[in-house]
Amino acid sequence: MKPIKVGLLGIGTVGAGTFTVLKRNAEEISRRAGRRIEITMVADLDVARALALTDGECEVVNDASLIINHPEIDIVIELIGGAGIARTLVLQAIANGKHVVTANKALLALHGNEIFKAAQEKGVIVAFEAAVAGGIPIIKVLRESLTANRIEWVAGIINGTTNFILSEMRDKGIDFTTALSGAMQLGYAEADPTVDIEGIDAGHKATLMASIAFGIPVQFGKAHVEGITKLQSVDIGYAEQLGYRIKLLAIAKRTPLGIELRVHPTLIPTRRLIANVEGAMNAVLVQADAVGATMYYGKGAGAEPTASAVIADLIDISRLFTAQPDHRVPHLAFQPDAMTDTPILPMAEITTSYYLRMHVADQLGVLATVTRILADSDISIDAMLQKEPAGGASETDIIILTHLTQEKCVDAAIARIEALATVIGKVTRIRLEELE
Amino acid sequence: MKPIKVGLLGIGTVGAGTFTVLKRNAEEISRRAGRRIEITMVADLDVARALALTDGECEVVNDASLIINHPEIDIVIELIGGAGIARTLVLQAIANGKHVVTANKALLALHGNEIFKAAQEKGVIVAFEAAVAGGIPIIKVLRESLTANRIEWVAGIINGTTNFILSEMRDKGIDFTTALSGAMQLGYAEADPTVDIEGIDAGHKATLMASIAFGIPVQFGKAHVEGITKLQSVDIGYAEQLGYRIKLLAIAKRTPLGIELRVHPTLIPTRRLIANVEGAMNAVLVQADAVGATMYYGKGAGAEPTASAVIADLIDISRLFTAQPDHRVPHLAFQPDAMTDTPILPMAEITTSYYLRMHVADQLGVLATVTRILADSDISIDAMLQKEPAGGASETDIIILTHLTQEKCVDAAIARIEALATVIGKVTRIRLEELE
Repeated sequence: MKPIKVGLLGIGTVGAGTFTVLKRNAEEISRRAGRRIEITMVADLDVARALALTDGECEVVNDASLIINHPEIDIVIELIGGAGIARTLVLQAIANGKHVVTANKALLALHGNEIFKAAQEKGVIVAFEAAVAGGIPIIKVLRESLTANRIEWVAGIINGTTNFILSEMRDKGIDFTTALSGAMQLGYAEADPTVDIEGIDAGHKATLMASIAFGIPVQFGKAHVEGITKLQSVDIGYAEQLGYRIKLLAIAKRTPLGIELRVHPTLIPTRRLIANVEGAMNAVLVQADAVGATMYYGKGAGAEPTASAVIADLIDISRLFTAQPDHRVPHLAFQPDAMTDTPILPMAEITTSYYLRMHVADQLGVLATVTRILADSDISIDAMLQKEPAGGASETDIIILTHLTQEKCVDAAIARIEALATVIGKVTRIRLEELE
Repeated sequence: MKPIKVGLLGIGTVGAGTFTVLKRNAEEISRRAGRRIEITMVADLDVARALALTDGECEVVNDASLIINHPEIDIVIELIGGAGIARTLVLQAIANGKHVVTANKALLALHGNEIFKAAQEKGVIVAFEAAVAGGIPIIKVLRESLTANRIEWVAGIINGTTNFILSEMRDKGIDFTTALSGAMQLGYAEADPTVDIEGIDAGHKATLMASIAFGIPVQFGKAHVEGITKLQSVDIGYAEQLGYRIKLLAIAKRTPLGIELRVHPTLIPTRRLIANVEGAMNAVLVQADAVGATMYYGKGAGAEPTASAVIADLIDISRLFTAQPDHRVPHLAFQPDAMTDTPILPMAEITTSYYLRMHVADQLGVLATVTRILADSDISIDAMLQKEPAGGASETDIIILTHLTQEKCVDAAIARIEALATVIGKVTRIRLEELE
């Protein structure tokens, strides 16, 4: 069969990895795909670097439109990133009848509906396995392997930077700022780590998973996104004593009221496999009605793990060339005319369990008052930890784990607790998921 | 689009689960697949039971050939099991131009080459996601998601019965026979558990995984298959003290000498995620050159988890109706003309680490003699555990963990050690994998 000709937009880390793996494993790949897949053009503003990386084996240009408009290019790989120029180029490639492979979660989380609609109308494929959890094939699993199931929820550790930082904080007992510096020195965090540590990157990925799990449009604007910057070591320690580990969890859950779509630090029972996913590794746990719980684990970032996903998409597309577009796997797993508008719930309406830590005066009756407030708010207590005041101190910590409750009840109870004279400062509230 | 009409051969546990899930999730499934998928005929010898299970919603016959020869049936699901009549029926269905979905690992491990060749010639698909690790989509992952990679090895806990028994032995400190009875009472082991506890079932599955990971023919006859019936509690305890857990591991590994294909009890470091897969759960760890390590976890058996895989295959086939056969994913992941005849190594040629336990007279110099024998055989020692003799006893246990070595060197060393007058009885040898 005729080789597939691919144009690459942006040869940074992942682009270079894709080029390397396609070349190194060319034989293994064509043994599987039945044809060669070749990057014949690369566009990058840094032409000199691109020439060095590709070693004269393909044409290098500094103008992406030369690739997008090239009649011999079958598939365009977009690895520029961001939601600006990348959007224009992807839409233009689609308009020109090119299939697109992208690792760009921000682009799809913000403009996915527009992009997939354009692709659908033009009969081309926009593949994005590399956009969520790097080398873990979670997009294919959700779209193609769990198709018999009604998916109930997806919970993932899908940002390696924050998982690395949380592992370091726990292992070494260090605070967030120290762990972040370490992660930056080791290359696990970028110079501007905002999108990672504020949970935005995980939010983009969770938005895409929610869409393909439940058949709803891409709606990043309605996701609750909370990072790990305010997380304190003391809470990691208390959680550990109570049998929990704190992870930045991305959750997409179907409930009778609507869809929960949220990213935040979360206590998870230590005995769960996913609680033991450490360092920069990623994992996604999926609960579905027929298959039950399944979990997918691997590297969520890096040149070659991400390249693995990009190339799998190239091969998938090369196989679907001759399939009628309406027989292909739909971009968002569900047929475009079968999407639903199930609402995404505001945080006040979500239901979960909570870890509450309050610093209190060591006086008789404080605990009784706090528990009465919780009972009044219909919040039942699952476990409690009261520390002895350290060496004659007159203040101490109370930690309470609640059973399932609606967030607005907890908000109200916290306001009342914080108003007590015997409670010092703010109540720390971290959500807790049993993941059963 | 026109509904897909499916005929089901054998409505036992998995067949009933498939019928139930297809019906319960009919709407969710057609939202994804773009058409309905209906079981319109069921063949089972127990017609009364089949009628009761299907509640008058499809035609029930007691003769499978009525389905196989029916002009309106698009896909045949084979859930009869075994390699006898199932083989005849599957080949006949293929000859009639039907696509086939099967969960029958024994059939494919023994007759896969013949069946896939027939399907290839006829231009039909034989899908078998349900044959390996139940609801875990490991076949699709190996065939479609890791296509960019040179797969180095696959190591799986792919038999729930034995993993349940091993978990019970460790948790409760009970012996194999007691744990087996418990598993039978709880329905985790069949009345005749031979194929599970002797490792045959895991061997069938490992054979299929090796084939699609490396592009080699299906060769169950060359697999080394060893069960857990001889495993003693004492070794589970010693392994634990040394930081390892014992699992029945199915291993398919590419080495410069050839392919290792083996199922046997294996020590795995407790800190590895896969070592913590307990009870009847399954997990498969894959090491590949670009993506690194990825792991897939879930239920490996049961009505609905297996049905989840069967139905995913039905939907995949329904999408590929219009694709040219040579654009489909090849049955064994690699194009039929790109398979290799890489040899499967005899056990004497494999390389791994070893746990050796010997019962010795508590005399000066025994350890020195044993370690000299190991050194003479080029076996280097990684760790050692010597128990104090229990209360005045004159005999004790020595446990040695070796570094990587070839099995034939260990065979030779064990023969020499067992010949020593100070060594009582046989040396217990369990293989050990670091899984790094």
